[in-house]
Amino acid sequence: MPIFFEDLVIGQRHDIGSFTFTPENIVAYARDFDPQPFHLSDEAAAKTHFGRLCASGWHTACVYMKLLVQDRQALAAAKTARGEPVAKMGGSPGFTELKWLRPVYAGDTLTYAHTVTDKRMSASRPEWGILFFVNEAWNQNGEKVFEFKGSAFAERREKA
Amino acid sequence: MPIFFEDLVIGQRHDIGSFTFTPENIVAYARDFDPQPFHLSDEAAAKTHFGRLCASGWHTACVYMKLLVQDRQALAAAKTARGEPVAKMGGSPGFTELKWLRPVYAGDTLTYAHTVTDKRMSASRPEWGILFFVNEAWNQNGEKVFEFKGSAFAERREKA
Repeated sequence: MPIFFEDLVIGQRHDIGSFTFTPENIVAYARDFDPQPFHLSDEAAAKTHFGRLCASGWHTACVYMKLLVQDRQALAAAKTARGEPVAKMGGSPGFTELKWLRPVYAGDTLTYAHTVTDKRMSASRPEWGILFFVNEAWNQNGEKVFEFKGSAFAERREKA
Repeated sequence: MPIFFEDLVIGQRHDIGSFTFTPENIVAYARDFDPQPFHLSDEAAAKTHFGRLCASGWHTACVYMKLLVQDRQALAAAKTARGEPVAKMGGSPGFTELKWLRPVYAGDTLTYAHTVTDKRMSASRPEWGILFFVNEAWNQNGEKVFEFKGSAFAERREKA
């Protein structure tokens, strides 16, 4: 996040955007990275327990990253335009507890959000704090389809 | 895996294949899903702590899935050609403890493998067992760059 550690509020949900999974983008992703029948055509998917074309679970995760980067870049540009300082963004060492809760079918529109669940100073890197967050996505019916938990470094405004 | 639950051996490592990350495939992935400067060009990456072009962490995860699907399809085809039964493959509900341990730079070749770490019968679905596994990838210098843990259903040969 281009937002300083001190300004991030535990429990506040931040929407990062929406994305519609189409037959075209589902099949394009699957051809490159997950060519299983239920991700390649309605005809092949009809013979499986999914019943019709649905997105690779990894595709739903990749779209989270796509929207996150777009959202961060837009936030940073808006801050720069207002003459406000933009916090440096730290990397993420990984994540945990990723769950694909429901299928994502062709035509579904997912809305993604993340929520800071906890934060603390970094003992080893005093210019940074550590954020803990949950990332979630819901379909157009309000059903949660995807979630995972992660952590990332965030720059501190007040250096220790 | 197209292999029956009974035939999967705890602790046995199974290589699923290798993949070379090129400037072309790194940038193509990043344009679609992770357009951060260090994934888009050597010039932009030189201004960051990475120093040169490196792959999105999500790209390394997507390539795991690509190789896994190719490996499963090849194993299933070989079994069919030998007249052996092919186990049905169950889905995965998700995974946990994904770690990006080192950068993956343009030119790196990763070798991916998975190891069954535990297995047990499914109480609720007697035709299936549950596998627990760790997935890992190493670069051409033998350095581990990526790992995560997961679980999946595997068909039982001897139905309960």
